[in-house]
Amino acid sequence: MNPIHPALINLPAPNTTFASDNSAGVHLAALQAIIDANTHHALAYGSDSWTQDVQKRFKELFGAQSESFIVWGGTGANVMALATLLQAGECVVCSDKAHIALDETGAPERALGAKLLTLPTNDGKIRPEQISQLSSLIGVQHHAQPGVLSITQATELGTLYTADEIRALTFEAKKLGMRVHLDGARIANATAALGGTVDTLRDFTVHAGLDVVCFGGTKAGLAFGEAVVYLNPEHARRAKYVHKQVNQLPSKMRFAAAQLSALLDNQLWLTLATHANQMAQRLYHATKDISGVSYPHAPAINGLFPILPRAAIEPLADWCKFWDWDESINQVRWMTAWDTTEQDVDRFAAGVRAILASQS
Amino acid sequence: MNPIHPALINLPAPNTTFASDNSAGVHLAALQAIIDANTHHALAYGSDSWTQDVQKRFKELFGAQSESFIVWGGTGANVMALATLLQAGECVVCSDKAHIALDETGAPERALGAKLLTLPTNDGKIRPEQISQLSSLIGVQHHAQPGVLSITQATELGTLYTADEIRALTFEAKKLGMRVHLDGARIANATAALGGTVDTLRDFTVHAGLDVVCFGGTKAGLAFGEAVVYLNPEHARRAKYVHKQVNQLPSKMRFAAAQLSALLDNQLWLTLATHANQMAQRLYHATKDISGVSYPHAPAINGLFPILPRAAIEPLADWCKFWDWDESINQVRWMTAWDTTEQDVDRFAAGVRAILASQS
Amino acid sequence: MNPIHPALINLPAPNTTFASDNSAGVHLAALQAIIDANTHHALAYGSDSWTQDVQKRFKELFGAQSESFIVWGGTGANVMALATLLQAGECVVCSDKAHIALDETGAPERALGAKLLTLPTNDGKIRPEQISQLSSLIGVQHHAQPGVLSITQATELGTLYTADEIRALTFEAKKLGMRVHLDGARIANATAALGGTVDTLRDFTVHAGLDVVCFGGTKAGLAFGEAVVYLNPEHARRAKYVHKQVNQLPSKMRFAAAQLSALLDNQLWLTLATHANQMAQRLYHATKDISGVSYPHAPAINGLFPILPRAAIEPLADWCKFWDWDESINQVRWMTAWDTTEQDVDRFAAGVRAILASQS
Amino acid sequence: MNPIHPALINLPAPNTTFASDNSAGVHLAALQAIIDANTHHALAYGSDSWTQDVQKRFKELFGAQSESFIVWGGTGANVMALATLLQAGECVVCSDKAHIALDETGAPERALGAKLLTLPTNDGKIRPEQISQLSSLIGVQHHAQPGVLSITQATELGTLYTADEIRALTFEAKKLGMRVHLDGARIANATAALGGTVDTLRDFTVHAGLDVVCFGGTKAGLAFGEAVVYLNPEHARRAKYVHKQVNQLPSKMRFAAAQLSALLDNQLWLTLATHANQMAQRLYHATKDISGVSYPHAPAINGLFPILPRAAIEPLADWCKFWDWDESINQVRWMTAWDTTEQDVDRFAAGVRAILASQS
Repeated sequence: MNPIHPALINLPAPNTTFASDNSAGVHLAALQAIIDANTHHALAYGSDSWTQDVQKRFKELFGAQSESFIVWGGTGANVMALATLLQAGECVVCSDKAHIALDETGAPERALGAKLLTLPTNDGKIRPEQISQLSSLIGVQHHAQPGVLSITQATELGTLYTADEIRALTFEAKKLGMRVHLDGARIANATAALGGTVDTLRDFTVHAGLDVVCFGGTKAGLAFGEAVVYLNPEHARRAKYVHKQVNQLPSKMRFAAAQLSALLDNQLWLTLATHANQMAQRLYHATKDISGVSYPHAPAINGLFPILPRAAIEPLADWCKFWDWDESINQVRWMTAWDTTEQDVDRFAAGVRAILASQS
Repeated sequence: MNPIHPALINLPAPNTTFASDNSAGVHLAALQAIIDANTHHALAYGSDSWTQDVQKRFKELFGAQSESFIVWGGTGANVMALATLLQAGECVVCSDKAHIALDETGAPERALGAKLLTLPTNDGKIRPEQISQLSSLIGVQHHAQPGVLSITQATELGTLYTADEIRALTFEAKKLGMRVHLDGARIANATAALGGTVDTLRDFTVHAGLDVVCFGGTKAGLAFGEAVVYLNPEHARRAKYVHKQVNQLPSKMRFAAAQLSALLDNQLWLTLATHANQMAQRLYHATKDISGVSYPHAPAINGLFPILPRAAIEPLADWCKFWDWDESINQVRWMTAWDTTEQDVDRFAAGVRAILASQS
Repeated sequence: MNPIHPALINLPAPNTTFASDNSAGVHLAALQAIIDANTHHALAYGSDSWTQDVQKRFKELFGAQSESFIVWGGTGANVMALATLLQAGECVVCSDKAHIALDETGAPERALGAKLLTLPTNDGKIRPEQISQLSSLIGVQHHAQPGVLSITQATELGTLYTADEIRALTFEAKKLGMRVHLDGARIANATAALGGTVDTLRDFTVHAGLDVVCFGGTKAGLAFGEAVVYLNPEHARRAKYVHKQVNQLPSKMRFAAAQLSALLDNQLWLTLATHANQMAQRLYHATKDISGVSYPHAPAINGLFPILPRAAIEPLADWCKFWDWDESINQVRWMTAWDTTEQDVDRFAAGVRAILASQS
Repeated sequence: MNPIHPALINLPAPNTTFASDNSAGVHLAALQAIIDANTHHALAYGSDSWTQDVQKRFKELFGAQSESFIVWGGTGANVMALATLLQAGECVVCSDKAHIALDETGAPERALGAKLLTLPTNDGKIRPEQISQLSSLIGVQHHAQPGVLSITQATELGTLYTADEIRALTFEAKKLGMRVHLDGARIANATAALGGTVDTLRDFTVHAGLDVVCFGGTKAGLAFGEAVVYLNPEHARRAKYVHKQVNQLPSKMRFAAAQLSALLDNQLWLTLATHANQMAQRLYHATKDISGVSYPHAPAINGLFPILPRAAIEPLADWCKFWDWDESINQVRWMTAWDTTEQDVDRFAAGVRAILASQS
């Protein structure tokens, strides 16, 4: 760790980092849910009342036909969902920016024994015509057959699909016999940004033709816990076994389920995500006019991707942690989280202003 | 659920079940550790002070050369350990009673793409001569080569290896070029039963030639959290990547690490396991002379495997949950846990006595 | 290589070994088929007239609904068939003596990422009650679900299932939702032994409820070439892609297809297998009364499994090659092949007699 | 099949297609080798004199330290080589035009359970700086680690690496701890084009730092048969088992080995490849000035990639088969083979001229 830069040394630092929504702590409602679930013995592996409760809540959210399974983490949720959807001879189709392709250390390939066919995207969003062009692969013995389309909402670049865009993708995918998976590690932020209601969520999931949704809890405010929600229950048939087979069956499942219930209670997930998104907007407006800071685009959810002078990046990150995004163009990533406060944002913006002023 | 049997209806039921140590809750020290770790932002994936702290503690336990990795659950711990140890063309050798062979839904085979070669055992314990007999496979192109020996301590049947027995196994295994893995989902109970000190643990692990130990936290009193401890650091070289590749890298790792630190603090793991073992002894002595109850063997750790009259099993389990073990011989399993009380045991024993008396 | 034993040195040695039907050469009809197929350019990967021809022949054999795929070898045929039949969360059920379990170096587990659940058998034959007992695994999340039953006809021990026995197995398997695979590396020998007609074959395959048959060509007299025949075409849907995905798609496929056509022509496969079986009978009758030779059972197909005095085995195998089978009881295996002659058998029997007489 | 186009109907068609070198037949020397190897019994799986002979020849070619294994086909050869080189947590790095990435139906991913990281290339050739840029992935837990670099010589686009270019790639790869594999399905054509001697071959393989070479036999004139040659014998340690584990161990191996010996005899492989390359040159020179035909580049080996008017393609291919390459730009592929004659080329060129004249 370097010493704090002179321009920042007298500024009060934010209480949170802007490194990742994974760096945030646990919302007190989720913590209380863990505490409350610790009352007595409960059968393991989901045969407990907390799991039954959260599964009921997910049915309320995604429809009575849906079936949900509680898992530890996001990579595991994706791998489980893909493993139940994919068949022999097939590949998974995804964006070249997808978390499953770039940031999961080949976990999908190890568990699936299958190729991830990546489509080039600038903003992490796949276009319908990219799916229809896959028809040239269909039926050709030498090519792994497109079996599952995996999309991310919000994308790793903080962009969003509209419900219509997702509908267009699932329409094209189903013409080719594909199933469709949504990686929703930040599905709460996406829902908040697209309208902020349960109907918003249903519109881009249930009513958009998705087969399975990974509903993220950790980034939304939990200690851990995600859900794999099969909108098409036909694909849930083997999920119970794959659940354990990919190391994603928590033995004391109640401590994950209780947290997820707390998150769904009174739409806390939307409240927290809306807040995180707002903090990103606040930070954007507080910094966009600072000389030396440029934004390729305004934030859609809780991540900002500004370009800074190279000399400003390291001192600023030493003072309040965030990560590089694309070193080649001096682009960084600032993530807000459910626990970012206005004070944190304002302090951070002051720091940005100070470091840039010191170097101009 | 059936109505409570008349013979039991007026008896006060135990507050805990005897179903599984996975049915127990979380020790308050672990719960407090979660709460205490929830103070501010911390970097994800183990770049936090709680993880560094628990890794230091594991070095104190297993030696400065060892390296530990924190994972979600027991199946994942085993899969991660095996995936780092196994090489192309090899198989894993284990008991036909091993958890990895029987109770993990083929998770090892899916992640490893390799065979589990099961050796027949009556009591879950592999004998050294079973390893030396594998030499007939060595060098034969048509047989997967024995690559990793996986043993369980305590075994799924509640039996124990002495340190000398493990030494004899690792000696034979290494003669054949194999590495050795220990599934320690109940390593605390085993350590408590074999002497109850840190030296006891070291004797059957570090000094017995093991390469990797899966150190169980969940059954020992945590909400979740296990450690994969490489005693031979050479095998840890690829562990960092395999950690994520098998879906076992918690993003907010501090909440697992803090719990494990609490468990290691003041040897809480040994205190709790000793207690659970004692409760099993208490239940054994309170029931072994009841007419109709027979024990193939006394409990070595926290599990009892009595044989009961068929008619007694269901009413008793409806009153206080436990599981069948071997239906063909009317054998059941009663597990005590860190939170089983003397009152729970005495109440349960009274129930056993009552149901059997009612049927005699 | 040791010097020839004095008792054998003046005896004319057989022209063939008794090591394996894989040690035999290529029947001249198959060799001629290779030569005849080498006339001009032909599209690769099966888009050639020879492949179309042999596929038509397999339809004549196994019914118009069947679909066949030509592969290189027997292990590959099994792996391809299993990979198309198995679904996520499932395991393959087979005999503990099965080639896929013992002699394929874990190739199925590598390609399938799935467990082979082995059932204990004395004679390599699975009993229907072993299948019905699998029902205790069905629906239990912790156990890989029985998905495919794999049986071998003739078994690795040279034993045979009757058509009724296979029907009983497929009946039980289908009650549990399983599909059924037959490893027919020696299906020609089995058919010859069970009646010797095409109807015999149909009776224990098409009419016995099998889903896929691996039809062996190499041991039957070819240089290479086997067929994976889907009796249930529903399972062939993904076969085209799995064909290549498991490295079993010959580019110049015509040279395999032409051989298989030659084998099916005028029922050459039955003629050759009948001959090999008869040579085994001849050897059995020529040696069964020799003092010191004992047979646990008479040969059913082209393999004999006699027990000999230890001292006789090595000199005899040095003189005319064969392999040990079970060293612990001095059991060896003598295989006849399509090219074993009466003279070979008589010379070999004379050698057996001579070595045993010299040691009595 | 359409009727022949009027412009072509009176032209004598070539005796060979220009579809693929996989469409060619078997050279008579290889066919004779099969016939000659069919003399008597020989032990299976490579314990025969033909296999020993060809392994000796490969040592002469690639050095005494090298070790070779005979396999069925090209996809299998690649999969076997990669499976022995790759370690847990790693990925394979290759060109986005590589056969393993595009044309093997995901066979590598299935057998390896690992990612293929594709680098963008215009001509199928990876540049050294693309390897050095991988250093940003090294040590990052969330990214599969670059483990094996796979290059193709000649590439799928018919381009060639010089020995110096391969040396530069292996130099960069080894700096990152990677091993290097060469897919040599057309290694004979590459060797012929780069100098045409054994020293040429050694220069871009042994002396360029490669770890393993897949030496193609099928496209070079055999019925089937390729060799996996480990230049670095350390990596051959597990090859014997992987050989069978990926379904690539021919039981009657002598029939593959004998063909490969015939191919190596008197440098027949170089003679045939030189001829095929010359036929491509002849076709290039006979067609390059035809109005309507344009070549992005001259052929380096035995493949031409001309651009034709759309209307000319189908009639020409109906008359003498070849395949589309890139439909979007009307690019086709014409492959010559070891058996293409000057007459075939001249007839085909006449057809090209006629169809274009008819449409101008």
